[in-house]
Amino acid sequence: MARTKGKLKKLRVIPLGGLGEVGKNITVLEYSDNILIVDCGLGFPNDDMLGIDLVVPDVSYLVSNADKIRGVVLTHGHEDHIGGIPFLLQKLNVPIYGTRLSLGILENKFQEHVFDFTPELHCVQAGDKIKLGLFEVEFIHVNHSIADACALAIKTPVGMIVHSGDFKIDTTSIDGEMTNLTRFGELGREGVLLLMAESTNSERPGYTPSERKVGESLERFFTAYHDKRVVIATFSSNVHRVQQIINMSAKYGRKVAVTGRSMINIVSAAVELGYMNVPDGVLVDITEIRKYPPEKMTIISTGSQGEPMSALYRMAFNMHDKVELNTDDVVIISASAIPGNEKLVGNIINELYKKGVTVLNDSVAEVHVSGHACQEELKLLHALVKPKYFMPVHGEARHLYHHKELAEYMGMDPSHIFISEIGKILEIGTDSAKFNGTVPAGIVLVDGTGVGDVGNVVLRDRRHLSEDGIIIVVATIDEQALDIISGPEIVSRGFVYAKESEHLIEQIRVIARDAVYSCLIRGVTEWTQLKYKVKDDLSKYIYSQTKRKPMILPIIMEI
Amino acid sequence: MARTKGKLKKLRVIPLGGLGEVGKNITVLEYSDNILIVDCGLGFPNDDMLGIDLVVPDVSYLVSNADKIRGVVLTHGHEDHIGGIPFLLQKLNVPIYGTRLSLGILENKFQEHVFDFTPELHCVQAGDKIKLGLFEVEFIHVNHSIADACALAIKTPVGMIVHSGDFKIDTTSIDGEMTNLTRFGELGREGVLLLMAESTNSERPGYTPSERKVGESLERFFTAYHDKRVVIATFSSNVHRVQQIINMSAKYGRKVAVTGRSMINIVSAAVELGYMNVPDGVLVDITEIRKYPPEKMTIISTGSQGEPMSALYRMAFNMHDKVELNTDDVVIISASAIPGNEKLVGNIINELYKKGVTVLNDSVAEVHVSGHACQEELKLLHALVKPKYFMPVHGEARHLYHHKELAEYMGMDPSHIFISEIGKILEIGTDSAKFNGTVPAGIVLVDGTGVGDVGNVVLRDRRHLSEDGIIIVVATIDEQALDIISGPEIVSRGFVYAKESEHLIEQIRVIARDAVYSCLIRGVTEWTQLKYKVKDDLSKYIYSQTKRKPMILPIIMEI
Repeated sequence: MARTKGKLKKLRVIPLGGLGEVGKNITVLEYSDNILIVDCGLGFPNDDMLGIDLVVPDVSYLVSNADKIRGVVLTHGHEDHIGGIPFLLQKLNVPIYGTRLSLGILENKFQEHVFDFTPELHCVQAGDKIKLGLFEVEFIHVNHSIADACALAIKTPVGMIVHSGDFKIDTTSIDGEMTNLTRFGELGREGVLLLMAESTNSERPGYTPSERKVGESLERFFTAYHDKRVVIATFSSNVHRVQQIINMSAKYGRKVAVTGRSMINIVSAAVELGYMNVPDGVLVDITEIRKYPPEKMTIISTGSQGEPMSALYRMAFNMHDKVELNTDDVVIISASAIPGNEKLVGNIINELYKKGVTVLNDSVAEVHVSGHACQEELKLLHALVKPKYFMPVHGEARHLYHHKELAEYMGMDPSHIFISEIGKILEIGTDSAKFNGTVPAGIVLVDGTGVGDVGNVVLRDRRHLSEDGIIIVVATIDEQALDIISGPEIVSRGFVYAKESEHLIEQIRVIARDAVYSCLIRGVTEWTQLKYKVKDDLSKYIYSQTKRKPMILPIIMEI
Repeated sequence: MARTKGKLKKLRVIPLGGLGEVGKNITVLEYSDNILIVDCGLGFPNDDMLGIDLVVPDVSYLVSNADKIRGVVLTHGHEDHIGGIPFLLQKLNVPIYGTRLSLGILENKFQEHVFDFTPELHCVQAGDKIKLGLFEVEFIHVNHSIADACALAIKTPVGMIVHSGDFKIDTTSIDGEMTNLTRFGELGREGVLLLMAESTNSERPGYTPSERKVGESLERFFTAYHDKRVVIATFSSNVHRVQQIINMSAKYGRKVAVTGRSMINIVSAAVELGYMNVPDGVLVDITEIRKYPPEKMTIISTGSQGEPMSALYRMAFNMHDKVELNTDDVVIISASAIPGNEKLVGNIINELYKKGVTVLNDSVAEVHVSGHACQEELKLLHALVKPKYFMPVHGEARHLYHHKELAEYMGMDPSHIFISEIGKILEIGTDSAKFNGTVPAGIVLVDGTGVGDVGNVVLRDRRHLSEDGIIIVVATIDEQALDIISGPEIVSRGFVYAKESEHLIEQIRVIARDAVYSCLIRGVTEWTQLKYKVKDDLSKYIYSQTKRKPMILPIIMEI
């Protein structure tokens, strides 16, 4: 600490992820030789990232400053906030601080990864304050669509930083605790230098309804459909939602079975950790559902985003080995489709209707509430925290700009609001804040076990292959005799159905042969030129005949 | 006609497309040796139809019954109702009947196709009745998001069929004519055997707002943003919408420029055909916009669905050669995202915000109204037409089932409601209706100039290629000497970046070589076995190393 005394040091606030749409939610606070990391999430690939499984943040900046890192603090246990931790730990052994549920979910993930060390996990709870180098972090209870979520008040040498995490304000929350507005008010009274607040619902006016609304809807449906089996798909991490489904089932004399790997995992973890309370005898195994009358069964399932091969998907497409749906079933999809998933969810709904299943989703019934604050809740936060500076976070550009507008509407000086970018440094002092430079940051693609080995060239090839397929031309030539001694063979995949296009393929063979000979006759045996000639002649011919541009791959072998 | 006398003939109603999501909107009515075709649209590919440009209906049933066809009647000029006509005409010369705008748009399309004959087009207008074999077709004016749209009343030997086309009920429509409810009422009084009605908005309660609402919103925005340039993206075929934009621009002293190929085409066609009325001097060329102060300009653009390379896309991503957007611009996206396009539209909106452009879209402002009837309008139609039988059409399964529910709610006997499928025959007599058999039907994929040459095998290969790329193993073997004389060469595309994975590629080469030799040593030179061994050994190794499953393509050459 002595090192900073007397010096005019600035705090650097750097989103390493989370302001774009992929490689989410990792924020770095840096002061002198102290780095604090807030969250480390992952994202899912965009449509153009073919074959990619996950997208994680580029943490090379942290690797090159490893000795400064004091720890990672987690706001809550959602994938986009903790999913990147195992990948970070592959590179760095850093202590992690989070609430019990966040750490429980994280430990579950560790089973799929191998580390050279035992990760250092520290359990905290709302109200706790921990000291990490020059930072002091206080965890503040907030409502969200997962239990045990926190905002953070981070005391730094230049002043107090408040990070909202993901939150809403639920006056009738399932666990009985509202977001700790009192604490936000106290912090505001004491003076907050910078507020970083989430922006997911900044376009939506009003308030997000209470989680309890969903319970009320469920009760209506359990009454109305008392003669049917009820299948409810929802996010497995929404422990309170699952709890409500279990409570309502117990109340109406139904047994509950759970299907889908993550749902089974999380329900058992939540029960074990005491976040969920299941009355004796209510939970039955999915293999035993035939023992009970259908109208006395509730099935809780994964697949609310239409994920291929999820439990709901398998039920819809007759691929579930335990559950067969028919006209005696009601399926409740208790979620909204995340942008990009609308069609996946729509496909499942259509399949269910074709079976005669009754479907209730958010376009026809109140079966879901958001976990994020709408405009009036955001205003409450701003009014309580009264920050000097503000950085909207967690959202697409449109959401950040709307959040900025909201802050301006509340009277904030536009020059005190900073819409940052991934890798951009906000330098902040007790009485100043400005952008100043960048650090290396971005995304890393994960494909199978490969982290970062698929880049733009590979993706471009995959896109090319996916559009019109590939035509491979193989010929073995005798360089001495200037002759083709085998081939050219034409092999295509994803281009046309070869059996029905024999003539076209034969023409392609003839053109390829002529191209090779036209080189050999002139004594040209140099690979590059041979390949270029074959590729050029073929692509012209193929485009003229089909208006398609398959990838053309000549392979010239020599003996 | 004599042929049918005395016989108990049935009418066959067959959707050849339009009840699924792709290869849209073609319905066949068949009675004795008379076939009437209603509409012939096209669809756009689903996400899993890689590289496919268009999806058109399979019309093989019509080709094998060519001599029976009396004609095609068009309800309106949208792609999903007329886009398949050029592909139908490639196979059959049949007369086409439609209103002036529908035919105008259709003729525009003919420029991209070559026929052996001049297509026979007959212009009709609402109120006209035409005789086509044993059918008499009456065109009835309806409101929709394109001008000159019609419903059809089709008099058949077994009774009256009413087909709604796409419609809404707009009491304050831009052209002054409401959907002809009177005529529907008269038909209902006389007795309607079967109603086929569209189902797009059957999940939405209430009424669809009038197109005029959009004009009122525009007026508010033109006033509020009087100091900014206004760019409005909308569907080019929505002539009334474009007309309102022009009117409002003229009223507020703005010039109007148009950008995007289809927008330019349709605006000129609509002006020429008299569907649009542009005050003198209002329209200026996009190349001349710099001559006018930005706040006196309106730009009408394509791209309201986020289409890549559309005019709006190019403006958002700095690729438009005439328009550069900045903080002095307001972009109004006057459309809703069609399911599946949400992310494309979202990407554009984010880019615009990053530029500081003000964006108004349907999530924050009333800038769009649907062209389809909501529940209360559907109820009006049912109440007026009072059909004996009902077939919900035009919608995904979920919409058809909700429309069925609506009809049942209004008191219709469920056994009189028929949710059909593509190719399914509804046999209908004066006093009976039942499903009876199917005809060949489905979809045909269009890729470049190829119609139908890309099938499931090719699509499966494209999907496989897009996931993990391809590894090609080429070896030339001497069958006599049982030796490899060239190779194996390993070529990969879309797998890993080869330069950074040299060790992996070398290992693959070694395993491939060993696999080939292990066969040759045992005297096995049979291709199938050689290839199988190479493929099997490599896929196991590659999966163990990378958890990926690229396509593996061994090519064994012989001399």
